[in-house]
Amino acid sequence: MASISQIAETIGGEIIGNPQLEIQGVCDVKSGKARHITFIGSREYEQYFDSCNADAFVVNLKFSLENRNKTLIKVDDPTYHFVKVVDMFYPAPVFKSGVHETAIIDDSVTLGENVSLGPYVVIEGGSTLGNNVVIGAGTFIGANVTIGEGTIIRPNVSVYHDSVIGKHCIIDSGTSIGADGFGLLTHKGIRHKMPHVGRAILEDNVLIGANCCVDRGTLNDTVVGEGSKFDNFIQVAHNVQIGKNCVISGQTAIGGSTVLGDNITIAGQVGIIDHLTIGSGSVIAGKSGVFQSIEENSFVSGTPARPHKERLRQDAATNKLPDLLKKVRKLEQEALQPENR
Amino acid sequence: MASISQIAETIGGEIIGNPQLEIQGVCDVKSGKARHITFIGSREYEQYFDSCNADAFVVNLKFSLENRNKTLIKVDDPTYHFVKVVDMFYPAPVFKSGVHETAIIDDSVTLGENVSLGPYVVIEGGSTLGNNVVIGAGTFIGANVTIGEGTIIRPNVSVYHDSVIGKHCIIDSGTSIGADGFGLLTHKGIRHKMPHVGRAILEDNVLIGANCCVDRGTLNDTVVGEGSKFDNFIQVAHNVQIGKNCVISGQTAIGGSTVLGDNITIAGQVGIIDHLTIGSGSVIAGKSGVFQSIEENSFVSGTPARPHKERLRQDAATNKLPDLLKKVRKLEQEALQPENR
Amino acid sequence: MASISQIAETIGGEIIGNPQLEIQGVCDVKSGKARHITFIGSREYEQYFDSCNADAFVVNLKFSLENRNKTLIKVDDPTYHFVKVVDMFYPAPVFKSGVHETAIIDDSVTLGENVSLGPYVVIEGGSTLGNNVVIGAGTFIGANVTIGEGTIIRPNVSVYHDSVIGKHCIIDSGTSIGADGFGLLTHKGIRHKMPHVGRAILEDNVLIGANCCVDRGTLNDTVVGEGSKFDNFIQVAHNVQIGKNCVISGQTAIGGSTVLGDNITIAGQVGIIDHLTIGSGSVIAGKSGVFQSIEENSFVSGTPARPHKERLRQDAATNKLPDLLKKVRKLEQEALQPENR
Repeated sequence: MASISQIAETIGGEIIGNPQLEIQGVCDVKSGKARHITFIGSREYEQYFDSCNADAFVVNLKFSLENRNKTLIKVDDPTYHFVKVVDMFYPAPVFKSGVHETAIIDDSVTLGENVSLGPYVVIEGGSTLGNNVVIGAGTFIGANVTIGEGTIIRPNVSVYHDSVIGKHCIIDSGTSIGADGFGLLTHKGIRHKMPHVGRAILEDNVLIGANCCVDRGTLNDTVVGEGSKFDNFIQVAHNVQIGKNCVISGQTAIGGSTVLGDNITIAGQVGIIDHLTIGSGSVIAGKSGVFQSIEENSFVSGTPARPHKERLRQDAATNKLPDLLKKVRKLEQEALQPENR
Repeated sequence: MASISQIAETIGGEIIGNPQLEIQGVCDVKSGKARHITFIGSREYEQYFDSCNADAFVVNLKFSLENRNKTLIKVDDPTYHFVKVVDMFYPAPVFKSGVHETAIIDDSVTLGENVSLGPYVVIEGGSTLGNNVVIGAGTFIGANVTIGEGTIIRPNVSVYHDSVIGKHCIIDSGTSIGADGFGLLTHKGIRHKMPHVGRAILEDNVLIGANCCVDRGTLNDTVVGEGSKFDNFIQVAHNVQIGKNCVISGQTAIGGSTVLGDNITIAGQVGIIDHLTIGSGSVIAGKSGVFQSIEENSFVSGTPARPHKERLRQDAATNKLPDLLKKVRKLEQEALQPENR
Repeated sequence: MASISQIAETIGGEIIGNPQLEIQGVCDVKSGKARHITFIGSREYEQYFDSCNADAFVVNLKFSLENRNKTLIKVDDPTYHFVKVVDMFYPAPVFKSGVHETAIIDDSVTLGENVSLGPYVVIEGGSTLGNNVVIGAGTFIGANVTIGEGTIIRPNVSVYHDSVIGKHCIIDSGTSIGADGFGLLTHKGIRHKMPHVGRAILEDNVLIGANCCVDRGTLNDTVVGEGSKFDNFIQVAHNVQIGKNCVISGQTAIGGSTVLGDNITIAGQVGIIDHLTIGSGSVIAGKSGVFQSIEENSFVSGTPARPHKERLRQDAATNKLPDLLKKVRKLEQEALQPENR
């Protein structure tokens, strides 16, 4: 329970309505719940304002809808500030500090202060964990791995030897970091696996979802740049370089040695083949198959991916195709009529 | 070993042939094995009847092919009844009852009767397991999770805190239930991860294959409805609502907040973007990219997905395109000829 | 550190340049590092020869570029021989022989000589491991599994009961071998899971990447043939038969009962539906959706997949579509002009 005035004070907003109103929790804006607070993060959600059962809303400074039954808290960025309200009602999980008695930590491992190592964690020799690192149950950390302070690795993750993980990263369950890439060579008709002596490196503030694979490099390193964020099931092949603040949605795969710039947004189920360059600021629509390099700030879609406007034009033309077939048939018939000959 | 008469009695069928025939096991219908029994579940498999090496067949009541060397057992639903024959020869695996001495179960966990908790299982505080629940080796169950009676969770699964799993569910290895969804917000140019305080809920009789991800909701819950069945590598994003008895094949992804009705069939490698509604009874063909909501009982295919009949018509038109180009070239040449001017 | 003459002796090559040059390590050819050695595996990499910072190169016998500052070692197959150079500087990881005290090995398990079983490994009854088998931390091996000599299974893998894994295989983290396939039957409107009593079989020298799923068969076995190699996230459904020396890239799925011949190459994110036959020697381009069987030595692409040359012709025709629409409009206008009537 928290009053509107407490909430407004926490997030630094202006109250329109009842500051004494007692709020029991947070809810979404589409249906909402009585005595709960929600937020309107953009104009498209204003349509739910009147029908929503919530009694209070965190809204933009410019929000102009009125409803005397609703209490508003006005802030400059409602989504950002609503997160603080969520934190008031659902404090972030606290991980019990300490090393569980069943964790097997090699004597040569360096542990920072206040680490939390869960049951059945295994950490091999030469690895270093910064302060406040959390490792979930059953997670394996190979030899000579570095993990920066404040990073949280969830249960049942596998981090192979030599991997470097920055500060304040999050890695969800089932993910594999630093497994050998898929490099084969053919000698006298037999395919051999190539050794992989590069590393997998995640810079600071990287988020890796559940069941992802970031492979180590062949000779160079595979790198995921600072602040980049991955959904689940992302495949990052050997030697890939991903820049800063990229966002990659579920089931997307990036082929070997491909280089991504910064601030790239990739939707779900995209495939990018190997040895390409994807320019900074580009956007790749869902399900695209990228077979060629992309210039900065492009917006591409489809398979093979091309500029989205071209794609739309071509799709529109394709839709007219059955009609076009009829027209040409008619023109042919007219051309065959004697009076036109 | 079981005689035809024993098998016919077990499944309640009529024998055509030799009731004393001793059967050593089950086999498939395409090649088959001598002294084994197989089944003909639909007419398309009748073509294998004569060449199959099996000596006995579970067939439909209307089955009319004759072969004096083969013994038949006639039932109303051969596939369904053949499963009982399989069970005669391969009894379902029995999970050893009890809590393995290495399982780490918080004191506040409530365990039903006859549970089977394997080695290195970890269950955090406040969780509740119903009777006959099976948890495989190395599986992690977070805090305040509820698991209904008869549910089987295989080794190396990760179930995050607050998740609710119904009765008689099955979850295969490597799956993650209840990890945070991929919700980001941008504040002053920096992308932040949103907290996720909704839950992941699997209703009764849900099947989740290996290496799947069912994310928890942001503010509301993510729900997989009663009796729905998933293949491997299925991605269910935050806030998704899936109805009852849906069937989803491998490597399919469902985007955030999308709502599926009941009895929907989705083939493999389908992507459905976020915030859509998919009507009950719909069928989505393999590899489709669904970018718009779908009415009830639709059959869609392709990317972007459209009604399958339209898709076929358009594919047929596209196939005629090279020919069409030639025709138009010819018409243009004719139009240029002086006698047509 | 190793001298050029030591390296040339190890790989059996001819030195052009300075045999006394001391080499500190291996590097890639695009940027390279001083005092390091790299290789030129094919003509497309010759462009980097002059600008590369490496001081030594393993090259083909026919290599003809000259640069007095670079030392060359000429061999018949530079990629193959360079791997041996990599091994000189980065010896393959040695797995500590022995059974970790926390590994839980059923009394009825047969262990070969010199096995390496990591912490928290679980092996159920009746299983057999050959000599020199390595099992990583937290990996689960079910009952009656056979693992051939020299096979390496990484941490957090799940191998279900009855699976058969050949000699010298590698299986990366998070992979599931032998889970039940996705076989459902509908009886009186209710969907039931079918029992799966076939096995998952990997023949010798098979490589399975991270987070893959190879399901067991329904009545027959699922088989991955000798020497076949998988990237990450590969889905092999029940009853699939894969031949020898196939190469399958990331996020590809093969539907139930489909049969692949030998020496097939499949790029990433390919989907092949169930019950097809894919002829030996075929190549399937990335993102293809294969809905029909494919003859030997085919090269197909697209969705639905068709011969790649046809696909290119059709794509070229589609690109001309907006232009074609204009041409036909013009022809229609001309046909309407009085002088043409």
